[in-house]
Amino acid sequence: MENFRLHIPTDIRFGKDRLEELPEVLSPYGKRILLAYGGGSIKKSGLYDKVVALLKDNGFSFVELSGIAPNPKIDSVRQGVRLIRENQLDAILAVGGGSVVDASKVIAAGVYYDGDVWDLVLDRSKVGRAVPIVDILTLAATGTEMNRNAVISNPETNEKLGTSGWELIPKASFLDPTLTYTVSKWQTAAGAADMMSHLFEQYFNRTEAVDVQDSIAEGLLKTIIKYAPIAIREPENYDARANLFWSSTLALNGLVGQGRSGGWSCHPIEHELSAYYDITHGIGLAILTPRWMTFCLDKDSTTHAKFAAYARNVWGLNQGTDEELARQAVQKTYDFFKEQLEIPMTLPEVGIENQDLVSEMSEQAVKHGGLSNDRFVNLTVDDVKEIIKASYNPMETF
Amino acid sequence: MENFRLHIPTDIRFGKDRLEELPEVLSPYGKRILLAYGGGSIKKSGLYDKVVALLKDNGFSFVELSGIAPNPKIDSVRQGVRLIRENQLDAILAVGGGSVVDASKVIAAGVYYDGDVWDLVLDRSKVGRAVPIVDILTLAATGTEMNRNAVISNPETNEKLGTSGWELIPKASFLDPTLTYTVSKWQTAAGAADMMSHLFEQYFNRTEAVDVQDSIAEGLLKTIIKYAPIAIREPENYDARANLFWSSTLALNGLVGQGRSGGWSCHPIEHELSAYYDITHGIGLAILTPRWMTFCLDKDSTTHAKFAAYARNVWGLNQGTDEELARQAVQKTYDFFKEQLEIPMTLPEVGIENQDLVSEMSEQAVKHGGLSNDRFVNLTVDDVKEIIKASYNPMETF
Repeated sequence: MENFRLHIPTDIRFGKDRLEELPEVLSPYGKRILLAYGGGSIKKSGLYDKVVALLKDNGFSFVELSGIAPNPKIDSVRQGVRLIRENQLDAILAVGGGSVVDASKVIAAGVYYDGDVWDLVLDRSKVGRAVPIVDILTLAATGTEMNRNAVISNPETNEKLGTSGWELIPKASFLDPTLTYTVSKWQTAAGAADMMSHLFEQYFNRTEAVDVQDSIAEGLLKTIIKYAPIAIREPENYDARANLFWSSTLALNGLVGQGRSGGWSCHPIEHELSAYYDITHGIGLAILTPRWMTFCLDKDSTTHAKFAAYARNVWGLNQGTDEELARQAVQKTYDFFKEQLEIPMTLPEVGIENQDLVSEMSEQAVKHGGLSNDRFVNLTVDDVKEIIKASYNPMETF
Repeated sequence: MENFRLHIPTDIRFGKDRLEELPEVLSPYGKRILLAYGGGSIKKSGLYDKVVALLKDNGFSFVELSGIAPNPKIDSVRQGVRLIRENQLDAILAVGGGSVVDASKVIAAGVYYDGDVWDLVLDRSKVGRAVPIVDILTLAATGTEMNRNAVISNPETNEKLGTSGWELIPKASFLDPTLTYTVSKWQTAAGAADMMSHLFEQYFNRTEAVDVQDSIAEGLLKTIIKYAPIAIREPENYDARANLFWSSTLALNGLVGQGRSGGWSCHPIEHELSAYYDITHGIGLAILTPRWMTFCLDKDSTTHAKFAAYARNVWGLNQGTDEELARQAVQKTYDFFKEQLEIPMTLPEVGIENQDLVSEMSEQAVKHGGLSNDRFVNLTVDDVKEIIKASYNPMETF
């Protein structure tokens, strides 16, 4: 285990029927609020009206920033920074999915940055002080509600990049599983795949003796594998929604990732798919992940032992050599995404039909994601091409 | 899963060779420090000299409170409150095991309390504002370094009681596994038993659908079971000490306990053993736990399923009915304590030979610990007597 710092002071308010705590939680950060949200879903669900009533009844004033899109765009961030400066706002209340929180984080830091806020995405060392953020999350997926990371897209440059800063961690997050009842099958599946991918990115790693972190990752993976299909079949199953929600938060709040080094693999590749084609992030991850796993197994036999541990401890498999167990587990993963989460598991099925951009995306992934160094298996541009190309066809059953 | 609040803002500095960060971490809380510690072990190890040099070289002044004992006594707490008031100190630097941190927590709250500080132990609703605490922990066991709890003993009344408060959570904790290299086999075993017991107290519980929490508990138990015997055999095995240390912190920082209700069972009984006989807390827990498990299995068949889950997911057992698996797991637990941790597994072996006080201790346990309500299995005074009496003899192999 390597040295680490863990400091996640987010005040988590988990559960149903506790939104009335919002004024008390928000008050320490000021009374002038930027209310950030996405499309119309929080209006349709009635959440918008509840939040607005709570703010008005408790002496808050607020300015709205609406229309923050999935794969949040830098333009929304620029707009948020302007609104906070022009109206001298004290804090951000982000209501919605991970995209709204991610945009809010970069807005929060942008207020204190002289220059174009895209700089903060290109260079996280420029992220400093930030406006406080409180969020009400409506989608279980990214884990942004309890960490210091944000991912922002720039459609002009086809870039989707992550940034980070200790000051960006939300002060408080309201996690109400009932708010995710209306999340569609598609988004529930994408969210489950996203949180599983967060765990894979940290778990498939070369640092030795991180049993604490690995066993937490295995436990969360088992929990997601148990409950995601239930949430898809029964969208208002509270226990399923609660376990998914809390798993998504813990998957990426540092518990699993701290104490080890090494970068991520599938996310940087998926970020290129989303940047070029604006596909749903979690769906892209589900498609890429089993191909990346197979690539690792084929290329580097030193990966077999860790994949075999995944087979044993997550899928309960125990028959065969490490390599056999590993390949069974990859197949289980693929089948889970396809059959249990009902995810279309090839790129053409999500509208990416021709292969014209594969080379460009692969180059960008290696460049932006640093994939050729310090990975579970280092990837060249040709390796990434192979992984993306394999994603155009159904995966062969071995 | 039930609603919960999780707010653990402790800044964890985990790993070796990072004590030089202490001045930066401590500075925000002031320059006038109460340096709290236990016996001579931190002087013998050289840690005391390092800390004192760091304080002096960085412009801190400090007053010492030494001699805080295991099962920390209320007199040390009273003394600490006096020292802080008389010297107008800003913060506490606690250096030592869980006892030093626990005493520091109640000192911290006592400074702002008018009246005898034992009141804060008897009634946690009186715990309010507190002086900030930073700690350097030298023993993996209690988890106090990342939670709001403290346990204090009053030898005059034979009481050992817990208290709690959000303001008592340490601001920062330095967790350096190398500081635990010199911990004896006995204390290493006791620490491992203590952290396992924390997990059991939370895991054997009636709240449904807490898979996230349960899977984390199972993962930490597996990690402790793997590494505690290694640490006992090889006291300077860094990976073993690191995994034990981080397991002990996470076992009791809320991750496993939040989202469910229901009180603890073995700790309240052990607190009576320690209060009357001052035995090592973790050893008392190791002795009591398998007897409590057997009692639960015998008395209430609705417990079998959860014990069987423990058998499957922690011990990898899979042959037999739920009850058979459950009893195998209890035996595994007993054998682990006895053979792997080398703990004497009967009360006479730790110096508690006659049974004169069994009734009195049982009454106190039920009274102080609220054991007759809201437990995994509710316990009467007679039930507790049976559990304690069974602890005088070796456990029968079934």
